Amino acid sequence: METTEPEANVTRIMLAVNESSIKGYPHASISSRGAFEWTIQKIVRSNTSGFKLLFLHVQAPHEDGFEGMDSIYAFPEDFKTMKHRDQTRGLHLLEYFVTRCHEIGVACEAWVKEGDPKEVICRQAKRMRPDLLVVGNRGLGPFQRVIAGTVSEFCVKHAECPVVSIKRSPGETPRDPVDD
Amino acid sequence: METTEPEANVTRIMLAVNESSIKGYPHASISSRGAFEWTIQKIVRSNTSGFKLLFLHVQAPHEDGFEGMDSIYAFPEDFKTMKHRDQTRGLHLLEYFVTRCHEIGVACEAWVKEGDPKEVICRQAKRMRPDLLVVGNRGLGPFQRVIAGTVSEFCVKHAECPVVSIKRSPGETPRDPVDD
Repeated sequence: METTEPEANVTRIMLAVNESSIKGYPHASISSRGAFEWTIQKIVRSNTSGFKLLFLHVQAPHEDGFEGMDSIYAFPEDFKTMKHRDQTRGLHLLEYFVTRCHEIGVACEAWVKEGDPKEVICRQAKRMRPDLLVVGNRGLGPFQRVIAGTVSEFCVKHAECPVVSIKRSPGETPRDPVDD
Repeated sequence: METTEPEANVTRIMLAVNESSIKGYPHASISSRGAFEWTIQKIVRSNTSGFKLLFLHVQAPHEDGFEGMDSIYAFPEDFKTMKHRDQTRGLHLLEYFVTRCHEIGVACEAWVKEGDPKEVICRQAKRMRPDLLVVGNRGLGPFQRVIAGTVSEFCVKHAECPVVSIKRSPGETPRDPVDD
């Protein structure tokens, strides 16, 4: 028989989640969903009262590069609209994970921050002190990694808590592996 | 009420464990014990039937550097004796973890391999396909790391399964942080 454990005693797992980069696909990225499913299936398992998931989504305003920067800085109005649109998208993303947790019966919290994802994730991990940080990973080769950069590598190196990076399964890799 | 799950469905966690490098201290290293305790307290928790731990100890015959190599290669008899002594020590190490698992009630398996620890751990992880590989980490700074090398960094980079590296807590660090 399982007893409900007090929150101070649960294992707190932070999941850094982001949106799909595939155009016309405004959902959680393949690797974020993979990291979440791995956490539920392999770690939480049936012990839903023993864990609490902390979802962090970091919005990078300049993610689109120069094109995005142009549209941000052309008129103050564009900046405002884009910021608002991004926040809505970010909230949809978190809503997905919070709903899934609710269905499964595991406690969770979710929040959005703005900035450079890798820096903000490490800063939030330092602040929240989770027992484990789970980050998705596109599983790119060394050459693709240099071009695309990887948030997971940075977190593994710099976060002060234990970090596990979950690679996308080969079957879920889109035509261009840089997409996610 | 918890049901006993069939083994095919348990989460298999591989733990790479080694001996303390502190002279006159023939036990599990501080970071190995830390990695084990973290796994039990933060991941397995009360769900002992949901997990199986796989302990791997890799013996590096040349670990002692030139001094060790001298004593190995002086006479064939020394080599044999040392190999035997190492195996005994390795078995003591595994006995410690297997006994702890038995007390806790979590299933486990343990084995010894010989070779370069980082290479052998990744090869065994590829063969065993655990759901998670847990490795201890002395938490050395960049300068100490260059001298001491780190098995955990290699595994994080090269193992084909998810890997988490557990740093030794500052309170458990011996006078010389390179010791473990």
